[in-house]
This record gives sequence, structure tokens and C-alpha cells, in this order.
Amino acid sequence: MDLSIGVIGTGEIGTDHVRRLTGHVAGARVQAVFDVDAERAAKLAAEVGAMAHTSAYDLIDDPAVEAVLIAAPSSVHAELTVACIASRKPVLCEKPLAPTAPECLRVMEAELATGTRLVQVGFMRRYDEGYGHLRRAIDGGSVGDVLLAHCVHRNAQSPPLFKSEMLLTDSVIHEIDSARWLLSEELVAATVFVPRKSPLAAGDLSDPQLVLLEATSGAMVTVEIFVNCQYGYDVRCELVGSMGAASLELPSMGAVTTRGIRGQAVPSDWKGRFAQAYRDELQHWVHGSRGGHLSGPSSFDGYAATAVAEACVRSLTTGKRAAVDLSSRPGLYDGP
Amino acid sequence: MDLSIGVIGTGEIGTDHVRRLTGHVAGARVQAVFDVDAERAAKLAAEVGAMAHTSAYDLIDDPAVEAVLIAAPSSVHAELTVACIASRKPVLCEKPLAPTAPECLRVMEAELATGTRLVQVGFMRRYDEGYGHLRRAIDGGSVGDVLLAHCVHRNAQSPPLFKSEMLLTDSVIHEIDSARWLLSEELVAATVFVPRKSPLAAGDLSDPQLVLLEATSGAMVTVEIFVNCQYGYDVRCELVGSMGAASLELPSMGAVTTRGIRGQAVPSDWKGRFAQAYRDELQHWVHGSRGGHLSGPSSFDGYAATAVAEACVRSLTTGKRAAVDLSSRPGLYDGP
Amino acid sequence: MDLSIGVIGTGEIGTDHVRRLTGHVAGARVQAVFDVDAERAAKLAAEVGAMAHTSAYDLIDDPAVEAVLIAAPSSVHAELTVACIASRKPVLCEKPLAPTAPECLRVMEAELATGTRLVQVGFMRRYDEGYGHLRRAIDGGSVGDVLLAHCVHRNAQSPPLFKSEMLLTDSVIHEIDSARWLLSEELVAATVFVPRKSPLAAGDLSDPQLVLLEATSGAMVTVEIFVNCQYGYDVRCELVGSMGAASLELPSMGAVTTRGIRGQAVPSDWKGRFAQAYRDELQHWVHGSRGGHLSGPSSFDGYAATAVAEACVRSLTTGKRAAVDLSSRPGLYDGP
Amino acid sequence: MDLSIGVIGTGEIGTDHVRRLTGHVAGARVQAVFDVDAERAAKLAAEVGAMAHTSAYDLIDDPAVEAVLIAAPSSVHAELTVACIASRKPVLCEKPLAPTAPECLRVMEAELATGTRLVQVGFMRRYDEGYGHLRRAIDGGSVGDVLLAHCVHRNAQSPPLFKSEMLLTDSVIHEIDSARWLLSEELVAATVFVPRKSPLAAGDLSDPQLVLLEATSGAMVTVEIFVNCQYGYDVRCELVGSMGAASLELPSMGAVTTRGIRGQAVPSDWKGRFAQAYRDELQHWVHGSRGGHLSGPSSFDGYAATAVAEACVRSLTTGKRAAVDLSSRPGLYDGP
Repeated sequence: MDLSIGVIGTGEIGTDHVRRLTGHVAGARVQAVFDVDAERAAKLAAEVGAMAHTSAYDLIDDPAVEAVLIAAPSSVHAELTVACIASRKPVLCEKPLAPTAPECLRVMEAELATGTRLVQVGFMRRYDEGYGHLRRAIDGGSVGDVLLAHCVHRNAQSPPLFKSEMLLTDSVIHEIDSARWLLSEELVAATVFVPRKSPLAAGDLSDPQLVLLEATSGAMVTVEIFVNCQYGYDVRCELVGSMGAASLELPSMGAVTTRGIRGQAVPSDWKGRFAQAYRDELQHWVHGSRGGHLSGPSSFDGYAATAVAEACVRSLTTGKRAAVDLSSRPGLYDGP
Repeated sequence: MDLSIGVIGTGEIGTDHVRRLTGHVAGARVQAVFDVDAERAAKLAAEVGAMAHTSAYDLIDDPAVEAVLIAAPSSVHAELTVACIASRKPVLCEKPLAPTAPECLRVMEAELATGTRLVQVGFMRRYDEGYGHLRRAIDGGSVGDVLLAHCVHRNAQSPPLFKSEMLLTDSVIHEIDSARWLLSEELVAATVFVPRKSPLAAGDLSDPQLVLLEATSGAMVTVEIFVNCQYGYDVRCELVGSMGAASLELPSMGAVTTRGIRGQAVPSDWKGRFAQAYRDELQHWVHGSRGGHLSGPSSFDGYAATAVAEACVRSLTTGKRAAVDLSSRPGLYDGP
Repeated sequence: MDLSIGVIGTGEIGTDHVRRLTGHVAGARVQAVFDVDAERAAKLAAEVGAMAHTSAYDLIDDPAVEAVLIAAPSSVHAELTVACIASRKPVLCEKPLAPTAPECLRVMEAELATGTRLVQVGFMRRYDEGYGHLRRAIDGGSVGDVLLAHCVHRNAQSPPLFKSEMLLTDSVIHEIDSARWLLSEELVAATVFVPRKSPLAAGDLSDPQLVLLEATSGAMVTVEIFVNCQYGYDVRCELVGSMGAASLELPSMGAVTTRGIRGQAVPSDWKGRFAQAYRDELQHWVHGSRGGHLSGPSSFDGYAATAVAEACVRSLTTGKRAAVDLSSRPGLYDGP
Repeated sequence: MDLSIGVIGTGEIGTDHVRRLTGHVAGARVQAVFDVDAERAAKLAAEVGAMAHTSAYDLIDDPAVEAVLIAAPSSVHAELTVACIASRKPVLCEKPLAPTAPECLRVMEAELATGTRLVQVGFMRRYDEGYGHLRRAIDGGSVGDVLLAHCVHRNAQSPPLFKSEMLLTDSVIHEIDSARWLLSEELVAATVFVPRKSPLAAGDLSDPQLVLLEATSGAMVTVEIFVNCQYGYDVRCELVGSMGAASLELPSMGAVTTRGIRGQAVPSDWKGRFAQAYRDELQHWVHGSRGGHLSGPSSFDGYAATAVAEACVRSLTTGKRAAVDLSSRPGLYDGP
């Protein structure tokens, strides 16, 4: 039987997830949706043959809902996830797990109390073929010990009302999770540098920013975050090891050559770039939910990412290096 | 409700399709399987919770089966497809539609008699992102009129007992369909050249071969087929137009650099290279079958590809240019 | 002491050679120039401090001229080269050595009569780093036996009054020499195919054309020649061997990414693409001339290239495969 | 007449320069050489038909020597350059101009006193086609305002006895000059970070290191220096601007594909990577010296690079950001 899923939040990301679950994921069915914009929720519900609930908690409590996908605003991620845990329903919570580390810990503790994994956090990059290639390069031993990683994360334009710390909490958090996952170690400190501001970044937005992350082993990760690069969505990473290097570059399958330029297309946004990763993320979560063996990014991963992002924000504010104070990882979250 | 699918043939390709339908395609369920190797069929049926039939016709006639995927040997493609048509069940027939043009025509006539499209042929490349990029380059006008296409199709090693004409009927047939699809015109002649034989090709296998295809407009397509290239699976295509060129190259997302070499991985076989295309092909067929509006490669496309492949075989045999004698395309198959 | 060089022909190529010899080649000095356009010659002579002769033969006979570079029209290449040989002066003759094989043979016989190499033919590609890379891939054994080569040769626009056979005699002749040099064997037959004509090629110019060359071993070489591709100058080559493949691609050192496109520059013409090869060609010839040990492309190479180009023209005219009838290579021309 | 050049220092770099001047540079002649290892100098002198002097000052004073190339140890660069200036002879001094900023200033003041440019510093990268491409991308306006630059500089192995600060003074100094040249502004501060040490770096060598350079405008430059990366010599740079990005990558002209890997060759060292840049650097200096209009990297450029490198060393030692205190640029050094 298909997994009956309730989706909370039908904004851009939530809507994409609903359509993906309906049209491209095996073994899944969207049973119910909820959004504070009831009209938007009703319209999407009609499109995919689901029902629209009038509250998120009704959806979570609905006995016909077996699992929950949370794509609501970050501020309510933690409380909704805790509610799902209370109902013993597997949940996929979009990143971040919560905006603050204490909230993340609260989720993690609720999950720990059940003695079983119920939460997956939406770090979809772990399902991207390119990041998989980096991980295999490390696991296969060809790069040796990782000493450095260089990450670039560029968006064409930032949304309206974007604030300087959001470059860290909304975008760099992906790099934080990727770095933790690739290096298989924790990040212990962060320093943020503010270069010359792009004249095309609105108001007093500090854009771009440079982030230096330090890992337990001493390995360092540089992150350039630039959310008004104009030209497109560009996510890259190079791992530098003692024996070799491995790179994730602009995905390419060919070119078009006209008027003196051999041109490769750059994705316009993250939706195109990570379309396949999103699909595989959902499929993996559906399989895990049905089989009762959730894996994928955990509550602890969500907590650690938020804790490092908070250190980044502190560094941006103070202009100094900020240490990350991380509680140790419970055994429930061991394993790959 | 999910589409209940019967799969005929549980060899390597059929098994992959069954697992894909079960684990990665939305709205589909494998209801039944059949294979002449009953034990193999039973094992796969048990794996995915399907039943195993004792004959292909029983499977087709099974009222619980709503649509049929044919991955049986090519020699029985036509008769099985005709049986599906007779039962008014949508069918996805692996390529080739049939080994000979007259058999293909028989399928097409049976389908035409129903007045509706029931058959999709398994030319999965049309669902590959790389071929899509080529198609968009043409449709968008950036290359102008297509004058030439250069195709390369290489496999690491040929299967045992591979014969010289099978390079044309099994492999080049993909290039034939791609060329027809990309150029939006028919191929009217084929000439096959036999270069120096690879010392690593078994027995008297003519490997590699060069094929020159001529389209209605005069556009020409060169195809190198080489099934013992040793290094991997490599499919490429360059379109040369009056205004520019567009290329499909080795898909790449990065590199590993060690010992003086910056290396990109080459797929080892077509399964890895076209994994996503197969998924999208099945998903598209399932959506079309459920909605009663099949599209994708048609019986006519299957017929035309076989007719051109037969011309290639004639040219290989005679050493001369062979014209393709193609009946005109019925209106049912109009449209993109 | 610097080698005193006389340059015959001060058109575009000759002028470039004079400036290169003066400004970028060690051990060389342009002593004298000649051109039928006396004014043009005088101006260039003044620029580089050379004298201008009133006839090519005066230049060749000038005792102050130690070596001669011929950049005059192809029709007089042979007689001028023979005159240089008669004066025992080393000569660098631009390609082709002569428009017809018998004329080439006459040059070769004159040189053979001296018992020493005096002639180098201007196939500058042998000095290009990219072609060197292909040659090393073969010599190093990594590709195994070469079975096929695929060459592409595109120019943005053809000069006025360009004729269909000139695609073969002016452009494909470079591919012919490259193929002979890379494969280390002779070409024995040529077939020319005429695809759909580019609407941007003037008048009845057959552009593009496809050429199939056959080597002694059975290895085959496909050549696409297209002299109105619009987008730039693009010369590529892929060698396909029994163990691997080696490619010469668009030279690249980076990209510029703007507005959704990651773009690499395509050279606008052969002068930019082969600037370094021309320099190294001249330097190599100057060293050889001063040391009395000329190597590089020989009279025999010039003869063979013209003979194969003539076969191409015959095939274009007759529409049939044309065999190349090549006299055997004199021992003087043995060696790499 | 050829420029008569004296070369001081016939170690690896000096010897290469002597051979380049003799065999690949127009208008130049090596008249004299000097080395503290008299035997080595004599041997090289014999090879190229030069004389060997018994002191550097004899060579500088030799009336037959018109210009001097200094490839002696860095510690004597300043005094030798000053001696050349005193003799009013154009000099090409290998980088660094001197190990300390005060010494560089002394050279600059000596030159300023003559009222004319006599000194070019050996920052050969400015003659590299790849760096030229970056410069043109900026000058052409396609990247907009430069906000960030990311540089990577890797060597396969460090020489014996290499010390941690030498990564900065010997290698990063090239990045410093490149950054100043590309950004057309001065660097005002440097911070060095020390990541996890490569287990393959000898003794207590801090390798790799991360350097953050700050420019007047606020633009920032990240530099990874890693001199034991094992795999080869890899120099790359990406400029990030308000409108687009421009990259210098591994130069490539093709690939060799074998056993599942499409591989591009990585240069083994700087001599191969910058062979052409060295030639063009020398040619440019010879032309300028003969014409009395030296351009290229100036004494001021040499001074500024050393001053920034000293700030890097201070930061490495103190673990803190180090400001660069630069005297202003004299008008003699204005211009491109």
C-alpha cells in the first residue's frame, strides 16, 4: 500500500514536494495538505486528490495520515516535528530543523525518548549525484586525508527583504551539512569575512560573504556565499586531500557553440539544479518510512547544522571567530 | 489508483524495469510477470509482490493487468504487442518493435485499426536530459538548419556471440531513432563502411563500423559504432547547423585529480548512463497509460527505425549504399 | 650569426611570417623580400630593415640570402622551390608543395638529386601542442592500434570566390597531413560526400563536405570540412584505438560566466589558433637550416598530401571512391 | 643588432633562461654568464658561445654586455640590480626583487634617480595566455566590479629544506602580483590560516596554508597554497564580479580515455605550465631593452609584492591579520 502523506506548507517548496510525491515518487500518496493560506491549500489539494485540513495539528492527528512532510516556515519546524514525533509518525522536515540550536535539541530529545528514528531533515544535497561523487572519492581513498574544502554557493538574485544573516542561515547551512557529511567530522569554529559589497545587492545587504569553517581534525572549509551573482545558480565544491583532489563542478552534458562562444548552460535556480536530488530524497524517505528504518540526515545533523550556522551569525555580528559548542552525538544517530 | 502492470520477460532489462516500476515510478504497480524461465519469474514476482503467470498470453489476458511492458526477446515483440492491442491494453515494447519492417507494419496496422495510440516503443534516449538539450538547441533556433550530425556509440565489450549485423540492429538503431527525432525528418539511405577490425573484437566480428545515414533534406548523419572499445560506455552526438553547433558529451559533474591526471569517470554501461532516462520513460508511459493519452516513441517510430536498420544491414552485406523504402506516416502519429 | 632569410610573397601569410621571423624567432633575420605587388613588398621591407627584390629569382640568387621562405601563390610553389634547391638553399614552402602530384614529384626529384634535405613544407600543425598530445598518446601505447580518426575542420566564413574543390585542396589537405603523421601510414583512397548545403554558403559552393579517407592498415579517417560555420575556427580530432581514445578539442584555459552561460572563447581564425605552432615551425626550420639538418614535413609529405587531395577532388567530381596512386617513399625521407 | 645579454646565475632557472634567449627569443644573444659555481657557468657558456665572467660585477661592467638578466639567489637581487642601474643597463630581475621591502625601495630609488625605467621583475604570469584572458574579462567589463578572487597554487612536492614562510615568499608572491595586476589596486592586509597539515609534508612544514588578502576597495582574495599536493602543478584563479565570473583553469587541449577514465594531463611543474609565458616575458623584455622603453612588472610591483609577502609572514608568525604599509607609487610607474 502507498504511504499516505500529509504535507504542511504549500508555498513554492511545499507545492513542488506535493507534485513530486504525486507524480514521481513510488509508493506515496498525498493524503492531506495544510497551509495558513487555506485557498492555496485547497487548490493544491484538489489538483492531486487530497483533502485540505484547517490546522497543521489536525493534519498530524488525522489517522489517515501515516507520515508528514513539513514545508512550513522555519519558525514552526520544531513544534510541528515534535507533534509528529508525539504521534509516532515519520516526518521529513525541510531545513533548517529549527532556527536555533536549543529548539533543535528539543526535537532531538523528543525523538530520542521514542528510542527510534522518526525524523529526516531536508538536506537534499546528500542525494545529489555530484555530492555522491565527492563522497565516493573520499571513501575510496583516492584523495587521502582531506585537508581543505572550497565551496562556492551563488544565487542569481536574492529574494526581497533578504537580510545579511540569512545568507548564513538559509544558504550556508547547506554547505555546513555538506561539509560535515563529506568530512565525517564536526565543525568547531566559524569566521565570517565581509568583502566589498556587490552594487547589485539591495540596501545594506552584506553580499557576498566569505566563511571559514574549522573541523575537529584541523581541516578547513572555505565558503563563498553570494546571492546576487546575476548569472545563475552555481554550487561547486573542491576537496583537497593529501593525495589528490576531487571536485564538484557545474554539471554538464554538452554545449551550444555560436558566435565565438562555446557555451554551457548554468542552472537558473536550485530547483533545476537539484531536481533529481529532491526526487531521490523523497523516494528514500518514503521507502524508509514504509519500512520503518528511516535514515538520511537526522535530527542530530539538523541540530549540528543550526549550531554552526548560529556561530556564523555570531561571527558576522562580532567580526570575530566564533566557536561552536556542540553536545555529543547520541548513539541513535550513529552509522552512515 | 495505481496502474497494474504486467511485465513479460524478466531478463536483465525486464528485471530492471520491474524494480524501477516498483521502487521509483509513481502510480504504478507490478501486478504480474512472465518469463520462459519460470523460476526466475517466480523469484522476481515474490520480490515485488506480483504474481507469476505461466504464459505471456495469460498475462496479457489477465483482467487485473491494465498495461503491459514487453521485455521479451525481439523475435516475439510484434506478436505480443499485437495481442496487447487486441486486448486494448497500453503497451511499452522494448526496442526494436520488431526485427523486420513488415512485422512492425503489422503492429502499426493493428494499432491503427483501434483508432488510438496504445503502443510506446522503448527508445529511452528521448527522455535523457542530454538529448533533450540537443533537441532544445534545434527547436530554439540557435544552430539554424541542421546539416550534419556526428554520433559515436561505444560499448566496453560486446556480449558473447555478438554478430556483425547486431551492431546495426541492436546499437545503431538507437542512433537512428535519435537522428529521426532530432532532425524531425526521415532517413532515406544508409551506407556502412568497415574499417580496420579491433584485435580485441572476437572472431570475425566487424567492429568498429562506420555508418552514413542520409535524411530527406540532404542532411547527413555519421555514426561510429564500436562495441569493444574497452574503456567504457560512451555515447556522444554533435549537431552541426548553419548557424552553430550543439553537442552531447560525456556527462560530467566533476573530476578526481591524482598522479598527474585530472580524471572524469566514464560510465561502464548503458544502465548507469541512462538510468534517469529509463525512469522518466517509464514514468511518462505510466502517466500516459493512466490518462489514456499515450505519446512518446510510436509504432511508426519503431517501424521507421527497423526499416533504416535493415537498410544498414543490407549495406553491410552488399558493400553498397542501401535506400530506405518507407511507407508514409499515418495521421495518428502526427505531433511531437 | 643569424640566418639571412629571403621571403617570397608578402600577402597575409607572408607578412605574418616576416614579422614572426623578425620579432619572435631566434637566430633569424629577414634579409630580403619579394612580392608581385612591389609597393607592398617595399613597405614591409622598410618595416623590418630588409631589402625588396624585383624578382623572386633575384631574391633566390642573392648571395646574402641563405634560406628562403615561400609564401607566394600555390601555382608557383614548385618552380620556386626547385630554384632554391638548385641554389642549395634551405627552403620552407607554404602548403601545398604544389597543386598537382607530378609537380610535387619534380620538386622531390630535384631534392633527391642533391642527396640532402633542403625542403620543409608548411604543415604547421605538427608543431601544435594539441597534435603533439595526440601523437604522444599513440606513441605511448595508451590507445592501442588506431582504428578510426574523426576530424572536424570549420572556418567561420569562406573567402570570396572560394570553390567547392578548394575545401579539399586548401583545408582538408591539413587533415590529410595530420592523419598521415599521426597514423604513420599512407592513405590509399578517398570518398567525398556532399550533405545538405548551408544556406549561408555563397552560390553553388558545396559546403559542408564529408570526406572518408582509408589508410593502408584499413584504419579510416572521417573529415568534416565546413568553411561557413559562422561561429569561429574549430579544428578537432579524435583518435579511436583498440584500447582507448585520444582527443584534440577546443583549447581552453578557462571561462567567462554571465547571464546563464558559462562560455569558452572559440578562436576566430587559424592565425590565433595556430599562432604558437607557426612560431615553433619557423624556429624549428631556422635551427635546422643553420645546422644543416632539416627535418619536419618533407617533400614526400607534401607530395603525398597533394596526391590524396587530388583523389578527394576526383571523388567530389565523380561521386565515387577514388584510389590514391602513390609512389614509394625514398630513403632520404625515412625517420620520424 | 642583437641585444648582448649577461646572465647572472646559472642554476636551473638561469640555465633555462640562457637556453631560451639563445634558442627561442628574437634579437637576443647571450654574451656572458656568471655563477659562483665557475665550472657550471663555463659549461653553459661553452654551450651557447658566451664567455664566463669571474664576478657578477665584472659581467655588469663588461662593455660588451648591454643588458643583464639576474637569476642569482634572492639575497643578492637588490645589490646586483642597483649595480645594473648604476651602469644604466636594462635588467630583468627574477622574482622577488628583494626579500625585504626596504631593499626593494632602495632599488626603486636608484632607478627613480635615473628618471627612466631600467628594471623589469620576473613575474612571468603576466605573459601567460590564461592570465591575459582573466585580465581581458575584467577590462572588457563582462564581470563587472571584482568583489572576490579565489586562487589555488599547488606544487607536487616541495624542495628539501623548504620552510613554512617560503610558501608565502616563494609561491604566494606570484598570487600577490597576479591579484594586484588583475584588480588594478593595492593589497592592504593579509591573514594566514594554517589548516590540518598534510602528512606528506616534511617535518613541521605548515602545508597547506590559506591566505586572505584584502584590497583597497574591500575586494578579497583567497589563496590556497599547497606545495605537497602530490598530483602535479596546478594554478587556478576565479574572479567573482558583480555581473559575472571569469576563471583560469587547468589548460586543456584534449583528453586520453582509457579504462573508465577520461583523463586530462596535469603539468608536472611550473616550467611546463609557464613555458610559453617565460618565452614571451623574455621576448618582451628584449624588445623593450632594445627600444629603450621597458615596461612589464616594475620595481614598484616588485616592492609591493614583497611588502605584501612580508605581511603574510607576519600573520603566519603572529596568527593575526597584518596590515600592509605601502609607500605610494611614483609617477614613473604609472600606466598599464
